Parts: sequence; C-alpha cells; structure tokens
Amino acid sequence: MNGSEIKATQKKYSLQSWSAQKGSDPIPVAKAEGIYFWDYDGNRYTDMSSQLVNLNLGFANPVINQAIKDQVDQYCFLSPSLGSEPRAALAEKIINLMPDNMGKVFFTNAGADANENAVKIARMFSGKFKVFSRYRSYHGSSFGAGNLTGEPRRYALEPGAPGFIKFFDPYMYRESIDFESETQATAYYLAKLREQILYEGPNNIAAIVMETITGSNGVIIPPEGYLPGVRALCDEFGILMICDEVMTGWGRTGKMFAFEHFKVKPDIVTFAKGVTCGYVPLGGVAVSQEIADYFDENVLSCGLTYSGHPLGCAAGLATVNYYRDAGILDHVSQIGLSLGEILESLKTKHPCVGDVRYIGLFAAIELVKDKATREPLVPYGKDPQGIMKQIVGMLKDKKFMTYSHENVLIVAPALIIDDEQLSEEMLKMDEILHQVDVLI
Amino acid sequence: MNGSEIKATQKKYSLQSWSAQKGSDPIPVAKAEGIYFWDYDGNRYTDMSSQLVNLNLGFANPVINQAIKDQVDQYCFLSPSLGSEPRAALAEKIINLMPDNMGKVFFTNAGADANENAVKIARMFSGKFKVFSRYRSYHGSSFGAGNLTGEPRRYALEPGAPGFIKFFDPYMYRESIDFESETQATAYYLAKLREQILYEGPNNIAAIVMETITGSNGVIIPPEGYLPGVRALCDEFGILMICDEVMTGWGRTGKMFAFEHFKVKPDIVTFAKGVTCGYVPLGGVAVSQEIADYFDENVLSCGLTYSGHPLGCAAGLATVNYYRDAGILDHVSQIGLSLGEILESLKTKHPCVGDVRYIGLFAAIELVKDKATREPLVPYGKDPQGIMKQIVGMLKDKKFMTYSHENVLIVAPALIIDDEQLSEEMLKMDEILHQVDVLI
Repeated sequence: MNGSEIKATQKKYSLQSWSAQKGSDPIPVAKAEGIYFWDYDGNRYTDMSSQLVNLNLGFANPVINQAIKDQVDQYCFLSPSLGSEPRAALAEKIINLMPDNMGKVFFTNAGADANENAVKIARMFSGKFKVFSRYRSYHGSSFGAGNLTGEPRRYALEPGAPGFIKFFDPYMYRESIDFESETQATAYYLAKLREQILYEGPNNIAAIVMETITGSNGVIIPPEGYLPGVRALCDEFGILMICDEVMTGWGRTGKMFAFEHFKVKPDIVTFAKGVTCGYVPLGGVAVSQEIADYFDENVLSCGLTYSGHPLGCAAGLATVNYYRDAGILDHVSQIGLSLGEILESLKTKHPCVGDVRYIGLFAAIELVKDKATREPLVPYGKDPQGIMKQIVGMLKDKKFMTYSHENVLIVAPALIIDDEQLSEEMLKMDEILHQVDVLI
Repeated sequence: MNGSEIKATQKKYSLQSWSAQKGSDPIPVAKAEGIYFWDYDGNRYTDMSSQLVNLNLGFANPVINQAIKDQVDQYCFLSPSLGSEPRAALAEKIINLMPDNMGKVFFTNAGADANENAVKIARMFSGKFKVFSRYRSYHGSSFGAGNLTGEPRRYALEPGAPGFIKFFDPYMYRESIDFESETQATAYYLAKLREQILYEGPNNIAAIVMETITGSNGVIIPPEGYLPGVRALCDEFGILMICDEVMTGWGRTGKMFAFEHFKVKPDIVTFAKGVTCGYVPLGGVAVSQEIADYFDENVLSCGLTYSGHPLGCAAGLATVNYYRDAGILDHVSQIGLSLGEILESLKTKHPCVGDVRYIGLFAAIELVKDKATREPLVPYGKDPQGIMKQIVGMLKDKKFMTYSHENVLIVAPALIIDDEQLSEEMLKMDEILHQVDVLI
C-alpha cells in the first residue's frame, strides 16, 4: 500500500483511540529512526513525546531489534507456567535495580494491567479493600486502572467499582493557597491526606497508589518531603505504598525510577512503557519481599495468557541493559539541565506560559490566559473551541510532534536526543508560543 | 543459564500465575517446535492444550517468525494515533473474515482488555448500563473482564463493579432437568434468559456477553437453536450481542469463528490468542458498522499505549493468512472427527469419564465419581485433595501437557497436529484414565 492507501484503509477499518473518528488523521509512517519518523511523502517528523512517553531509546535501536530477532529464533511464546531464560533474567535484573526491600516481579502486558494487578495484590496481601489514588492522575483505561484514574477519562467507567477513593495531588501552581515554601506545601498536603485517611478508616485502606510524578496530567513534581511524608503515613497506618512508574521509570527523569529522587522505598512498583520502549508490549508489578513471601503459601489470584512473554522479556532485557551500557541516565541528567534552561526562558518570555515543570527529559508547559490570575488557557475537562488541538496542530505543521492534556503541552523526547536536536526543536516551540501569545 | 538456574532464578524473582508460589514448578524450556517443546535435559513434551489455547499454529512457525523479523526492520512500535500498513491491512483482513454487518476493529493487547473495551463500547453506544454474562465463563482477570467472568477467579475482584449481571450457561450435562432434546433445552434456557431480561429491565441492558462456546469452564457447546435464540432476544429488546471468541476464534473449532457454526451475527466480537498465536501479544474488538459509525461523531473513550501495535499486527497478518493458505480449517474439521471418535470411546470405556464435549480441536473430558449420578470428581470451586492437579501431573509424567479446570481436562492441541500424533497422545490419556478409574 502507498501512504494514502494505508491512511484510508486504517481509517476505514480500525478505530483510533480517544477521539471521534471523523477528526482522526493518522499519518502513515514509512520509516523511523532515532527521534525521527518519515511519512510516505518523505516528510520528516520529530517525536518530541517519545510517542506516548514510552519510546525512551527512540526508534530502531539495533540492540533491542537484535534481541527480538534472536528470541524469535528460540521461541516467541511460552505459557506463563513454564520457564524461560529472558523472563528469569529480566525479573532478576529488575529486582536488582530496585530498592533492597523488593522481591519479585509479576509480568503483565502493559501499564494498565500492571496497575490492575497491583490493586489485586495489595488487597489479597492486606485483606483490606479501599484504595487511595489522586484526581490528577492517569493509571490506564481498563476498569480497575480506570477507577484508579482521577481525570475525566475515568467517567466512561462510571458508576465505578466501590472502594476507590480520590485525594488531591500536591499541585502547588493551581492551589488557592499561596505557599511560602515547598516545606509548607508538603505539611499542608500531608495533613489533608492524614485527615482523609482517618475519615475513611485506616484499617480499611489497602494501598495508596500514585504516579511518582504525575505524568500526562501535567508533570506535577511532588514538593520537598512529600513522598517521604506519604511513606511515613503508610507506615503509621499499615497501608501499602504503590508507585506507578509506567511513565517515569526507566531513565525518563535521570534516575532509573523517579522515586529514587525522593529517597523512598515503595512496597509495590508498577512499570511498562520504557521497559521495552514498547518494541514488544510488556508491563509488570514489582512487589516487596514481604508481599512475595505471602504468596508462597497463598494463591496469587492473578494471571494472563501473555504473562512473562518471552519475546517481551527478551526485548526488556536488552532495553534495560542498554540504559546502563550507553550511559543514558547521566545523559538525561545532563541534557535535562539544558531543557530546564530553555523552558525557564520560554516562561519568562511568553505571556501564555504560566508554569513550566521539568525533571530529566520529562516536562510540561502549562498554558494560561493570564499569567497573573493563572486562569488556564482552557477550562478543566473541556476545550470547546479546540484551542489545545489547534496548538498541537501548529507544532505538527513544524514537524514537532507531541500531545496535550488539558491546558498542558508535554515535552518528553527520547532519552537519546542531543543538545543540538533539542535546541532546534525547542526553537519551533518558541515560535508557536509567540503565536499563542497573540491568541490569548 | 542452564535449565536449573533458569528455574531457580524464575522462581526466586518472578511470580507465577494462579498459584501458591511454593508449589509452582516451571519447566525451563530450551527449544520448541510444532506441537513439542524440550527442557534443558533433552526431554520432549507434547503441548496438548496449545499452551493456553492460543498457540494454534504451534511453535516456530517460519512464516510468522519471518513476518516479525521483517517488521522489526521497518519499526516495532508507533503511537496509536499514527498509521501503519500492518495495522491497516490486518484490520481490513479481519473485517473481511467477519459477517457482513461488521465494520471496524479496535486493537488491544490481549483478550481481557478486548472484553474490557467491548463493555465500554457497548455502554457508550447504547447509553445503557447493565451487562449480562454467564456463571460458567472466563473473560479475563482485570477488573472489567473479571466482573464479566462468572467462575471463582472473579472472587478476587469482589465486591465488584455495579451492573454486571450473571445468568446460567446452557450446561445440559449438569442440569437438574433431563431434557429430551437439544430443542427442549434451548426453549428452557431461552425462557429463563428472557425472564431475567424482563426482571432486570430490558431498557437497562447494554449487552449480553458470551464465550460463543464456553472454554476453560468446560467446552460447553450451546444446544441447537440457542445462539440464534439469544440473537432474537437481543433484537427484541435492543441489546447488543457480544461474542467472546478469544479462545474459540481463528480456526480452533474448524471455522474461522465459532459463531459461524450457529449462523448468528454478533454486534461485537472480541478476539486475541490465535490472532497471533501469542507470538506477539495482540487482541481486539470488532464492532458492527452501525456501532463504528456512531463513533464518527462521538468520542471513543478507549485507548491504550500499545493499541494497533505494528509488531503485533504484522504477526497477526501473517498468522491469519496462514490459516487460509495452509488449509488449516479443513484440517481441523477433518481431524476433529478423529478426536471425537477417540473421546467417545474413552467415555464408553472409562467409569471416570462422565461426559466428553468436542468441536474441531476444542475438547473437554469431564471426570466424575459416578457415571450414573454424574457426581463430579471434585466439588465445584474446590479440590482439597488436589486430585485434578494430581491427574494433570500424571499426564505430565507421560509428557502429555495440558491443564484442568474444576473437574474437566482440556484437550486442545495445536491445529497442525496430525492423526498419528493425535492417536499417540490420546493413548497416553487412555492409560491415565485407567488409573483415574481406580481412584474413584
């Protein structure tokens, strides 16, 4: 098929995510390498969101590709009840990369079912039922993950399952209180969380589930002391701490896992995306040794056909090794400083930029109508004039590919981007923000 | 790693599905081809369940393997918002294989999330909330799919989400009524279903979800007229008919989809497993043109990172083409007759065999303590002495690999098995059933 045939056929026969189908416009991709992909007319696009913040090592990584081919030559699939070297080796590798309290990995297909199984495991282990998660959060679109999710994409699952309780993120920029310091903010958010735990009944709460750093909902980085404070509340009340590292894991923030920035040890960690960069679908749940031991004698009531998929695990092993072998974490920490400087200058320069938040190569630009009042460019949960879509389209016209959520633009390029590429692309962002300045 | 290292490492670092970990015994697999796999000591095992009834074309199919490698050379992954040839081509192929009312495919990672999304789509399209499914059913272990599931594996998700209503399967062998004919049974089951629809309120019911033929829960084949009768009830009350073809699809029963045996056209079909044989994880939801059209203007509130995964779709395209090119369906219909004859002779010969059910290469042997009373070998939902596990272990000692569920042994070899292989393996089953005869 040529490009237009691919596009027409896909539109005719396949449903596109999160959209009315008439408006969908799937660019047919002919080839892809590094941070770039090309359509069938030879146009080159820059992937400035690592696709869905999963393609951490970019397209066509030769090491991952070779690992997949080698595994194909052994076997692609085994029942989860059997044993394979890539599964054993990847599980061992992951546990060794995690804090010393972690014990075992349960492999899933993706992030959503990692979160589904994390909740199941927390309930089985604790014998408790309620699960806390946050409003500004996305944990997946299946029923369990969608009930954890706090933002509007959960509405499609309502009325939801019982026992899913929401609390507020530490979203300082949009708080009605003007905090004097991060420490003050942390004290406030922890006091509210403690109060809510008491009102819900500490003995009823199995787990608190958080994206370590809220992702699509705005790269909300927790203030100083917040995560250790949540850890302390969990310890005080016997609640499990579950960190969703689906987006933030695997080098995205300059550490292997984002919780390392905050010096906390979760009880359960969910992951996906960067573990294989999406080359083969894979996700998983890492649990503490204590939780793992519980299931020595008790039945783990979790299972899925593709759990521990050999091809996925082989891709994962190559990917995880690559982060270390290629020095990706150091590179991200370094170039993340450049990105931060560029973002701060955009914030200074543009009336439409209310806030910028960034850590490693994980960043958000929050657009406002008014810098002083912080009124968001579009109201929460709606965008009747399609302004954000228009801005994403303007970036796309410059071949800067990313996505938006609410009034926020995500900037999260592949972790292999170099300084020159970053500057070149962020210049495009600068140009578009000038146009947005005029819009507001 | 050698075999014992793989096993020890996997047991130490990775959780095994549906089991207490102490009892798990993952055979480390060194190589695999066709219906066989080998451990690191050179022992050969015969896969008589197509792993988890997904490996329809057996291990190491060269055509699927090559398609995966070729796709790796183009690209492994794209965001679902972009367009790829394998996705477009596979979606077109699938719709062309389905009844003429079908319109589009939404791709997922597996069967569970196919069912999750089918329910979401049915609710969005209909504006109705309740979903009917059956007690003897398994639709997956995530929250939505697990709420559809009727058997004990759903208990881990309770108290469940509201709106999931259960009805009884047409399980004639275990019915207290002794039906004179399939037609009489059908009339009974449809009358009960109609009554339950009226009691729940027809205007509240979005969909009826069924495995076209109940799978793991005992290969329960619907009696003559049952599925057309359900279709008629759906039409009468404006309810969507959803067929879960995750296990029964892709040639397993001798047709491409099991509903073809019963001359019905579902509104929604979910699939996974055989679409790629599990070589790369893939699942999907096919919806009618009418439902597809609804989402032209209305937002489809479904999405997942790996939707329309190019590597999965490339594997799927090769697999689906292979079924046709290699004449698999005819072979299954033919050899299914041999399997049926063998099973009938086992039933005649063995006091422990209460019932055998089979269609194509999809079969179950139902074990009883007493043929006359039909008392099951183990009571529903428990097996305190681990008798079924013991029987599966006795088969395993003969290198006949399958699994059991309740008092039922599944026989579902890869669709490429030949007559000689089938006879050889079923002789092992015969020997083990002699030992079970003594046990009861």
